Amino acid sequence: MSRKKRQKKDKRVKYTSVNQVPGQVTYVGSKESVAPSVEIINYNKEKVTREDSNDVQNAFNFNGTDDITWININGLNHTKEIEKLGKHYKLHQLIIEDIVNTQQRPKIDDYEGYIFVVLKMLYHDAQNEFINEHLSIVIGEDYVLTFQEADGDVFNGLRERIENANGRIRNSGTDYLLYALIDAVVDNYFIIIDTMSDKIEALEDSLFLENPEEDLSHDIQDLKREVLKIRKAIYPLREVINRLEKSEHQLIDEKTHSYLRDLQDHITQISENIEVYREMIWGLMDMYMTTISNKMNEVMKVLTIMASIFIPLTFMAGIYGMNFEYIPELQFKYGYFYLWGAMIVVFFLMIWYFKRKKWL
Amino acid sequence: MSRKKRQKKDKRVKYTSVNQVPGQVTYVGSKESVAPSVEIINYNKEKVTREDSNDVQNAFNFNGTDDITWININGLNHTKEIEKLGKHYKLHQLIIEDIVNTQQRPKIDDYEGYIFVVLKMLYHDAQNEFINEHLSIVIGEDYVLTFQEADGDVFNGLRERIENANGRIRNSGTDYLLYALIDAVVDNYFIIIDTMSDKIEALEDSLFLENPEEDLSHDIQDLKREVLKIRKAIYPLREVINRLEKSEHQLIDEKTHSYLRDLQDHITQISENIEVYREMIWGLMDMYMTTISNKMNEVMKVLTIMASIFIPLTFMAGIYGMNFEYIPELQFKYGYFYLWGAMIVVFFLMIWYFKRKKWL
Amino acid sequence: MSRKKRQKKDKRVKYTSVNQVPGQVTYVGSKESVAPSVEIINYNKEKVTREDSNDVQNAFNFNGTDDITWININGLNHTKEIEKLGKHYKLHQLIIEDIVNTQQRPKIDDYEGYIFVVLKMLYHDAQNEFINEHLSIVIGEDYVLTFQEADGDVFNGLRERIENANGRIRNSGTDYLLYALIDAVVDNYFIIIDTMSDKIEALEDSLFLENPEEDLSHDIQDLKREVLKIRKAIYPLREVINRLEKSEHQLIDEKTHSYLRDLQDHITQISENIEVYREMIWGLMDMYMTTISNKMNEVMKVLTIMASIFIPLTFMAGIYGMNFEYIPELQFKYGYFYLWGAMIVVFFLMIWYFKRKKWL
Amino acid sequence: MSRKKRQKKDKRVKYTSVNQVPGQVTYVGSKESVAPSVEIINYNKEKVTREDSNDVQNAFNFNGTDDITWININGLNHTKEIEKLGKHYKLHQLIIEDIVNTQQRPKIDDYEGYIFVVLKMLYHDAQNEFINEHLSIVIGEDYVLTFQEADGDVFNGLRERIENANGRIRNSGTDYLLYALIDAVVDNYFIIIDTMSDKIEALEDSLFLENPEEDLSHDIQDLKREVLKIRKAIYPLREVINRLEKSEHQLIDEKTHSYLRDLQDHITQISENIEVYREMIWGLMDMYMTTISNKMNEVMKVLTIMASIFIPLTFMAGIYGMNFEYIPELQFKYGYFYLWGAMIVVFFLMIWYFKRKKWL
Amino acid sequence: MSRKKRQKKDKRVKYTSVNQVPGQVTYVGSKESVAPSVEIINYNKEKVTREDSNDVQNAFNFNGTDDITWININGLNHTKEIEKLGKHYKLHQLIIEDIVNTQQRPKIDDYEGYIFVVLKMLYHDAQNEFINEHLSIVIGEDYVLTFQEADGDVFNGLRERIENANGRIRNSGTDYLLYALIDAVVDNYFIIIDTMSDKIEALEDSLFLENPEEDLSHDIQDLKREVLKIRKAIYPLREVINRLEKSEHQLIDEKTHSYLRDLQDHITQISENIEVYREMIWGLMDMYMTTISNKMNEVMKVLTIMASIFIPLTFMAGIYGMNFEYIPELQFKYGYFYLWGAMIVVFFLMIWYFKRKKWL
Repeated sequence: MSRKKRQKKDKRVKYTSVNQVPGQVTYVGSKESVAPSVEIINYNKEKVTREDSNDVQNAFNFNGTDDITWININGLNHTKEIEKLGKHYKLHQLIIEDIVNTQQRPKIDDYEGYIFVVLKMLYHDAQNEFINEHLSIVIGEDYVLTFQEADGDVFNGLRERIENANGRIRNSGTDYLLYALIDAVVDNYFIIIDTMSDKIEALEDSLFLENPEEDLSHDIQDLKREVLKIRKAIYPLREVINRLEKSEHQLIDEKTHSYLRDLQDHITQISENIEVYREMIWGLMDMYMTTISNKMNEVMKVLTIMASIFIPLTFMAGIYGMNFEYIPELQFKYGYFYLWGAMIVVFFLMIWYFKRKKWL
Repeated sequence: MSRKKRQKKDKRVKYTSVNQVPGQVTYVGSKESVAPSVEIINYNKEKVTREDSNDVQNAFNFNGTDDITWININGLNHTKEIEKLGKHYKLHQLIIEDIVNTQQRPKIDDYEGYIFVVLKMLYHDAQNEFINEHLSIVIGEDYVLTFQEADGDVFNGLRERIENANGRIRNSGTDYLLYALIDAVVDNYFIIIDTMSDKIEALEDSLFLENPEEDLSHDIQDLKREVLKIRKAIYPLREVINRLEKSEHQLIDEKTHSYLRDLQDHITQISENIEVYREMIWGLMDMYMTTISNKMNEVMKVLTIMASIFIPLTFMAGIYGMNFEYIPELQFKYGYFYLWGAMIVVFFLMIWYFKRKKWL
Repeated sequence: MSRKKRQKKDKRVKYTSVNQVPGQVTYVGSKESVAPSVEIINYNKEKVTREDSNDVQNAFNFNGTDDITWININGLNHTKEIEKLGKHYKLHQLIIEDIVNTQQRPKIDDYEGYIFVVLKMLYHDAQNEFINEHLSIVIGEDYVLTFQEADGDVFNGLRERIENANGRIRNSGTDYLLYALIDAVVDNYFIIIDTMSDKIEALEDSLFLENPEEDLSHDIQDLKREVLKIRKAIYPLREVINRLEKSEHQLIDEKTHSYLRDLQDHITQISENIEVYREMIWGLMDMYMTTISNKMNEVMKVLTIMASIFIPLTFMAGIYGMNFEYIPELQFKYGYFYLWGAMIVVFFLMIWYFKRKKWL
Repeated sequence: MSRKKRQKKDKRVKYTSVNQVPGQVTYVGSKESVAPSVEIINYNKEKVTREDSNDVQNAFNFNGTDDITWININGLNHTKEIEKLGKHYKLHQLIIEDIVNTQQRPKIDDYEGYIFVVLKMLYHDAQNEFINEHLSIVIGEDYVLTFQEADGDVFNGLRERIENANGRIRNSGTDYLLYALIDAVVDNYFIIIDTMSDKIEALEDSLFLENPEEDLSHDIQDLKREVLKIRKAIYPLREVINRLEKSEHQLIDEKTHSYLRDLQDHITQISENIEVYREMIWGLMDMYMTTISNKMNEVMKVLTIMASIFIPLTFMAGIYGMNFEYIPELQFKYGYFYLWGAMIVVFFLMIWYFKRKKWL
Repeated sequence: MSRKKRQKKDKRVKYTSVNQVPGQVTYVGSKESVAPSVEIINYNKEKVTREDSNDVQNAFNFNGTDDITWININGLNHTKEIEKLGKHYKLHQLIIEDIVNTQQRPKIDDYEGYIFVVLKMLYHDAQNEFINEHLSIVIGEDYVLTFQEADGDVFNGLRERIENANGRIRNSGTDYLLYALIDAVVDNYFIIIDTMSDKIEALEDSLFLENPEEDLSHDIQDLKREVLKIRKAIYPLREVINRLEKSEHQLIDEKTHSYLRDLQDHITQISENIEVYREMIWGLMDMYMTTISNKMNEVMKVLTIMASIFIPLTFMAGIYGMNFEYIPELQFKYGYFYLWGAMIVVFFLMIWYFKRKKWL
């Protein structure tokens, strides 16, 4: 990956919300959608209805029934609509702020009557580009709200399972839907770390090439940065799931705990893999150093061999290029050929010497 | 940044208070203001008054009323005035000592009737210079005292919100003002670590230049030092906010806790970022090493190519510069041109060899 | 080990179960056996019967008696059969999923009436190839189920002891068989880390060779990867055994605890050894770096000695190869021999100089 | 600092007390004073008396009164006298052993009726030499015993404050004197780590010199050793002060706790600084490596430039030194000048090439 | 230390007990003594008897009296005799296994009526060879059993103190003897780490030599291995002593606790020293790297100086060796001497240049 390309893709989001009133709702991310896209899925054991809309107002019609209503908002830049939703469900002002603050790290907050979870959705989109999307989930007694930064997510399998009548999801409460949402996100982490593993292997293979086209240290540093970023996105989720699993909130059903324990296993496994990859990447820099040194060794050997062979020979030729009045060898009939003989002997002595040193 | 400049800016404050009586009030910082600047903001739900003065005595007139009085002192070298204030509010002698001791690390002390918080205000002033200012806050039932090393702070947004009638701050107690003060400080940390991130990227880019003008290892070491200093200033604050959040002191209202939890999230996020930057900076030194090694490799290749091509050719020329009486080739009519032919063949053989080795 | 060979052997298993319904049973490993091989050992104090079958149905005949029934399944790709078994013993759906998910890390789950343990069986098979096999154990009141990825395991010694009438195993419950199974697995870890130790020593010896045939940094990196993988497989088992030892599950007899404590000692010892080997391997890269540098030093010395000796001599010869009309030395009768004398003096001066510098 | 000097100053104390009876009192340090110097300070609110003596017996006269008696012994080699003192105050035999064992690490032991504290007094004496002195403190109801290895300590300020009638120290119990003693020791640690900081800066500056006179890696290693030693002396004191602060021993007054908390802050700050310095020193070695590599790069460039310019030119001269019968150029009238022209062109081409590569 | 020698001394013990019945007694060490040497010391306040024997049976005569009986077995290969002893004192089968398993890490096990401690005895024997001996101690109400791998131990001082009537040991119970035994072992650790410190210093001195005879990286790696091994032997003992100190086993007398606390101090101090040495050894590799690089720098300088001086001079000589028909300088009367002048100027210019660069 060239440096230029990386810098374009990697446009950092600055913390522009500094010096604002606490609790003020300002979107700081870079993804903007024209209209908020609101997706409302209402289901119970018997039936499912799904409605797409541009106005959160439509979602409120479903509320108050015995069904579970999943309202999914795409586009965090429409802070007004999100505040309207927050007011309807009586969410704390700080929660609204966290929903639109894409810098917020993964966390869980228990409130009277609802649970608030923030996490990071990492996935490769249709164009195979790496997406790090801020995702907030609020679950209440009979509603689940999800807030995403932009269109596109990892919940398509989940939507199918809801529509599919005979799944466990249709027979469970909002806590199971929360579990299913987090599970879908965590499942995608596995793909992300698989990609990481592929990149490490590709770099290791590059280190074998005789003459890598560019300085690989920047690629290794980029990989370090990437693994550190992924770790930052994923690690706090361990604590989140841990607290969910231990939670005695009235919304979390007893039966859901074994599913959460399973999730905990997965996130621990991912964390362990990330640590392993991190150590591998750190090792790559050492490998690169030795590769460079090995190459320099080879360059030096070529120079040393060439110089060591021809410098003495040139000296010998120089001797008989001198203009002394009396150089007896010059008068020998075959002096020239004797010298060639001596030179060939010297030449093979040097070759033998370098062979013995295993430089040839 | 040149070395000279760094050393001037970086004038270290020595621990000159050594061997003094414990509890003795001595200012050890380097920033001196001529007169202590006292700023008194008195507010309640209905009205705000603000008065700037040079005498702390003026502040006491406001005290004793039902309003909240925020007294802000700029200039810690006026220890007499600070002691006068301390006596008025019956602060412990050790607190007065900590207020003027700019070496004091961030901490929180609960006392009967008041809470004492020390933290570090990091910001870039109007001249864009990095400022590390010692800040102490004392809150009581109806007063908030803040002590700053020098003029200039990060509280302008906060002052506006106090003057603005409809904010939450006017309807809350001193604990909310404490939160708002710390929040303003923490918000500025985000800017500081953003600057850090920019510096790291600038250094990474410098490492790409063919021939960086100076030894970058000192810049990297400076950056290490800087991140270590920032970490030292920020890390203890985590513990401070953590203890505030868990505190059951009568001054901390129940409703303030959720704001403090939010603050805790922010400071954790900052700490995580600092750790990431720290790892990136450590990686920079490795990158620099490989950059140097890569350059040396290139230098060596040029030398090896030049020497390997011309040393054998010079030897061939040397052969026919010899003065032997009988060198048959010298009598050949086109001997000179044959030799040129041989030399050109050798030349291209070497070129081909180096091409195959990918050195050209 | 050549790079090619490593890559073939090391075919990574991708996380293909992503985006599936939680609790869905899909085998993700790479080892496939044609028919599930079911081995049923039924024993009590008096007698042992053993039956090999291809149908788990046969195992159920043994159930319900007073004996202990050990059912061992080889081949996790036959998910249907495993589900049948799970249904018979009323195992939780998540357990069935974990049994066939070879990516599952070692863990223990307590359930009402049974205990579920996952661990990794590491051993060298008959062809001396390293095998990392996913092993799940379920123990109930009178049955022990073990699920292995493929044929071949480390339990042959255990089978003999069961057949041998007078062992403790025949007089104990399923908890002791669980201990004995884990103990057999852990005992094999000792062999694995012994092999690791041998590889480290072999690499250290390779570093002594004058001219190692290939770039050793990849072998060292491979070894790092290997020790990290083994650590990932073994470390979680510490927690598993720890929880078993502290468990108050009704299935774990009081007397078994001292055996579990012993097991705990063993796994701790293995972990400590792995840490030591890890540090040794990290040190290997440093050793390799110094080895390369030492070699380059030697190459440079040869070049420097050759060049330093012959360049001045060539210059001296060059002087008297000049065609000035008047060079007095050229007319000396023995000028040529005088020059030889001077050259020999220079030669020995250089030799002496390099001897004093200890380069020769 | 030269290597020789370091080794003289750094004479290690061997553990010569090995294989002795536990509880046997043997001094293992290297500092010997001819006679034990006993300093007895007796004070209460009204008056102070001070007496210097060579016999501990004199100290006992003061005992039993209502005053506080501070007995300070210099010279741990006089084990007999120390045992006499121990018997008088009924100290445990192990305490006596620890008082004279200069290898004992900082610790605190609570006993019925007295508290025993061991710490390390680090300071620069009048000759500016670094002193690491073993200091033991025992406090009882009305006495404080301090045992120092040699003359000279950091308590002069404290002595003055005792003599000065109006200090807090005269109005407090032995616990405050204990605090004041530890505080004086900790205050000096700040000076020690300031010196450390100066040394690091000096080394960083040395790394800038074109040609440092000696191998700096030993100075860096010495600094590492020093910071590790200081850390070893200081770190355990954190635990000591922590336990003092939490202690509910009847000798520790309620009011003293806030002073101890202050002390805790100081020692934490020192520990944090030591960690920062440690990281800086580790970074120094990397800087040194890059400095060496940069220098080698420069050396190589000079060689490459010289060789690359003159080797082709020498070859060109060699061509026309050949003795072929027919070399057309030799007959050209201005052939010699044409060649010079060609040589100058080649010369400037090389210069241009190296300029473009930024090597010149 | 040469590589060959190390490998001979370092013959690793393989884990040959794998796949055995748990609780089966198999000696896996390498030290074999022909007959078990049994040493029986029986003592009370009044008298001591000592008997050496080859049959453990003799030891049982002493048992059952009011005295304390210390039975010391040398030679773990005589598993039969050890089992006999175990049966007599009713020791658990797993203890017997641990006594002969020299791979067992230090641990403590409390049983009803007796305490079992495993530790490692590290010392230099009469031939100054490093011995790592497996030592097990069992104490009961009136007996102490010690099991050593071979003859020779660190308890001679202890035996003398037992024979010496007036020591504390004769008046205390088996718990004090246990303390005294561990204390003797720990005291020897101090000697071991002193030796380690000497080796580090010797290596540091070797790094100063101009031309160390062999590649030191292996010696450094050996030292790393050694410190890791010692750490592995010593660290678990901290936990053992810690649990002993906190133990409320009826065999541990109240008064013994202060001695155990003292022991705890010692082992902590040793652990801290090991950590310091470990960091120093890791630093050694860096030092070695810089030493190599510095040497290469010097080699390169010699080459560069020689080449830079003589290559231009050779070129100048080459110019006037050309055979052009018209080279005006050749006809100058003193052309030869003018050229020498120019050469001398060039020579000193180069010398001056290198002096200015501080390379000379």
